[in-house]
Amino acid sequence: MRALPPPVQNLIDAFSRLPGVGPKTAARLAFYLLKEEGDIAKDLAEALTALKLDTAYCKKCHNITLAGQELCEVCEDSRRDDALICVVEEPSDVIAIERTGVFIEGIGPEQIKFQSLLERLQKEPVREVIIATNPTMEGDATALYLQQRITPLGIKVSRLARGLPVGGDIEYADQNTLQRALSGRQSME
Amino acid sequence: MRALPPPVQNLIDAFSRLPGVGPKTAARLAFYLLKEEGDIAKDLAEALTALKLDTAYCKKCHNITLAGQELCEVCEDSRRDDALICVVEEPSDVIAIERTGVFIEGIGPEQIKFQSLLERLQKEPVREVIIATNPTMEGDATALYLQQRITPLGIKVSRLARGLPVGGDIEYADQNTLQRALSGRQSME
Repeated sequence: MRALPPPVQNLIDAFSRLPGVGPKTAARLAFYLLKEEGDIAKDLAEALTALKLDTAYCKKCHNITLAGQELCEVCEDSRRDDALICVVEEPSDVIAIERTGVFIEGIGPEQIKFQSLLERLQKEPVREVIIATNPTMEGDATALYLQQRITPLGIKVSRLARGLPVGGDIEYADQNTLQRALSGRQSME
Repeated sequence: MRALPPPVQNLIDAFSRLPGVGPKTAARLAFYLLKEEGDIAKDLAEALTALKLDTAYCKKCHNITLAGQELCEVCEDSRRDDALICVVEEPSDVIAIERTGVFIEGIGPEQIKFQSLLERLQKEPVREVIIATNPTMEGDATALYLQQRITPLGIKVSRLARGLPVGGDIEYADQNTLQRALSGRQSME
């Protein structure tokens, strides 16, 4: 017995394809599940299968929403200010911004969705676009690019205050830091 | 949108139930899979489902084997020495012992399978039992308990040499250390 039975080895290989999971961690997880007598493996398999079947992207802002829904919860919320859009890099950043309690209409992951955003800005009465890209080189470049495309439309462009640690990730910022960064956002002119 | 869509949250919850996976790692994995366009989530779901359906425990030594097989690869191997049994704590330790290249018949995860082992020792012509429990407090206690039960049967009991780092795990020991620990095994008398 120089090799593990294929069902065990296959699971180790599948876990190893996840980011940050090496072969030893993958083996530890596989043997844990083999021994575990509850429903962890079954529940995880079902959640993995449901992930893509039961989700879709919002037709308006590209945020995650439930399958079968045109618009996401943010775009459907009538209490939001339609004249203010917040641009984020990833769907996972939406929840971090939302947790600050500052309600903004149309928060959405606009990464490589510039064209869709520009079309909205031409059709809708938007007053300001807040760019909530990560405080990284890539996020800076995206913000600059957006500012150059949006300013000519006569719409104000602002960016989250640099209270966020440079090189960090919005998704992992604490609520207070993000709240201050949002209220102290600076106009890009 | 104060909460994530249920399909995303459910997957985060399922990942969080794995040992060593916290809520932030679970969220990172879920958003990675949401964005990933290959088959990683599908392959992982299938491997998880197959894990328990396609594996079974060896009727003789409780090692992992393929579903539908009475005996594992080790117990079925006629080149092995029937008079020598090596006791390990976990199925995952079998492959580590096997990789040393020292062929031993009946290597198996005997944890809480004492009764099954004692029955084998009374029926089979076993000359020696090598106890390959981890060099930990728990492993020491298990080894002592086994030695007290097996010695009265007139069978030699030995233990892997303490070349293994104390507090460590056999599964992660390197091949040479384990090879030396196996060949330098000490009799418990």
